[in-house]
Amino acid sequence: MLDILNQHRTIRQYADKHISPELINTLLKAAAQASNTGNMQAYSVVVTTDAGIKRQLAPAHFNQPMITDAPAALTFCADFNRFTKWCEQRNAEPGYNNFQSFMAAAIDALIFAQTFAVAAESQGLGICYLGTTTYNAGEIIDILNLPKLVVPVTTITVGYPEFTPELTDRLPIEAVVHHETYRDYIPEKIDELYTEKESSEFYKNFVTENNKETLAQVFTDIRYSRKNNEFFSEKFLAVLKEQGFLN
Amino acid sequence: MLDILNQHRTIRQYADKHISPELINTLLKAAAQASNTGNMQAYSVVVTTDAGIKRQLAPAHFNQPMITDAPAALTFCADFNRFTKWCEQRNAEPGYNNFQSFMAAAIDALIFAQTFAVAAESQGLGICYLGTTTYNAGEIIDILNLPKLVVPVTTITVGYPEFTPELTDRLPIEAVVHHETYRDYIPEKIDELYTEKESSEFYKNFVTENNKETLAQVFTDIRYSRKNNEFFSEKFLAVLKEQGFLN
Repeated sequence: MLDILNQHRTIRQYADKHISPELINTLLKAAAQASNTGNMQAYSVVVTTDAGIKRQLAPAHFNQPMITDAPAALTFCADFNRFTKWCEQRNAEPGYNNFQSFMAAAIDALIFAQTFAVAAESQGLGICYLGTTTYNAGEIIDILNLPKLVVPVTTITVGYPEFTPELTDRLPIEAVVHHETYRDYIPEKIDELYTEKESSEFYKNFVTENNKETLAQVFTDIRYSRKNNEFFSEKFLAVLKEQGFLN
Repeated sequence: MLDILNQHRTIRQYADKHISPELINTLLKAAAQASNTGNMQAYSVVVTTDAGIKRQLAPAHFNQPMITDAPAALTFCADFNRFTKWCEQRNAEPGYNNFQSFMAAAIDALIFAQTFAVAAESQGLGICYLGTTTYNAGEIIDILNLPKLVVPVTTITVGYPEFTPELTDRLPIEAVVHHETYRDYIPEKIDELYTEKESSEFYKNFVTENNKETLAQVFTDIRYSRKNNEFFSEKFLAVLKEQGFLN
């Protein structure tokens, strides 16, 4: 089992092979057994396999090819719509149109999503997370007909891998683990933790190809720039308000 | 592997048995191989085993006994502090003090957390998520010395189970799965989806013990009330602002 987790790689190219609806259902059932807030299960997933709807979703994911190439795209949503409707039908007054409820529902949706991912990988499938979901949540809401109190938080494309790519590097584990309390990073420690990554041929080429001086500049100037982050922050906050989670 | 996921139960009572630091490290390494945003690994975990610090954390978790009884409590944090410091040391201008970056980091932290949970369970350990983390994030920040751009999003207590409790019920899987697009719930469907839960002896007793008419009222009036949700919404938004994620 640890082997499966240690062998995780993102799969962006898929074999031309169908996934049976029964298998997806089995994986989702295993995922639904995972922890959630107060057993309210404040999440939903939309399983999209229809080529036409995947094509509609593609621009919201900046036309990353995985969305149309994978046999299935799963949009995981924070969902207090179902629970709220149940309360209203049971003479109870729901109070879930607020930010804390969104956070609880988003946590539930992400635990559900990652358990699905692990379940899928254990059965020989490969997955790719699409971080674009929170950039263009409003567009996804329109395409998938998501009602109020439902907000997409991540998307996973899934299929049989076309091939097995190399494992992706990670920082030394000590970079992300603190013992007892948080010990902030002194400059020498930052240098030490990023040395291996920065000295790899792969990342050196990546910096050169992007015409930058440092690897960090590829992130700040190109991949995750302040301008984009601020633009998509406003956009996502507006979606939370529109969907009723910021009253 | 699916068996492990299907057998998940929350463990709230732990045997008096130590977990070796090496095992925790092995589990965290497997978890760090999971997907994250742009390989920035915008998360950290604080592993607390010291009895004194666990006691300090307890009130922030409303004195749920797991926090002091479990051999280890892991606080998973959205963390753009480390990445920002790296950028600053590499002549790059970071722009991660905004809500979209918080969301990306929170997603990373939760994927990391749940992969740790699955890894732990595969090795015979039991876990419990503490949803109180987003209620009292400010208090946790003070106790664990979390700097700006670090916000705790969930806590997992972990240890060897004292015994194996019953599996917890879940809604029928069709309650949380939508095909192609979202199909909103008509009242008859809500009734159907919640019938099994509402007719169980366990929940009938739960309603009676809480002096309520319906199970939904136990949630809306006692466990997750509007008043509390709104109070903790304001509190968590203030923490995001204080930690620098809402500029």
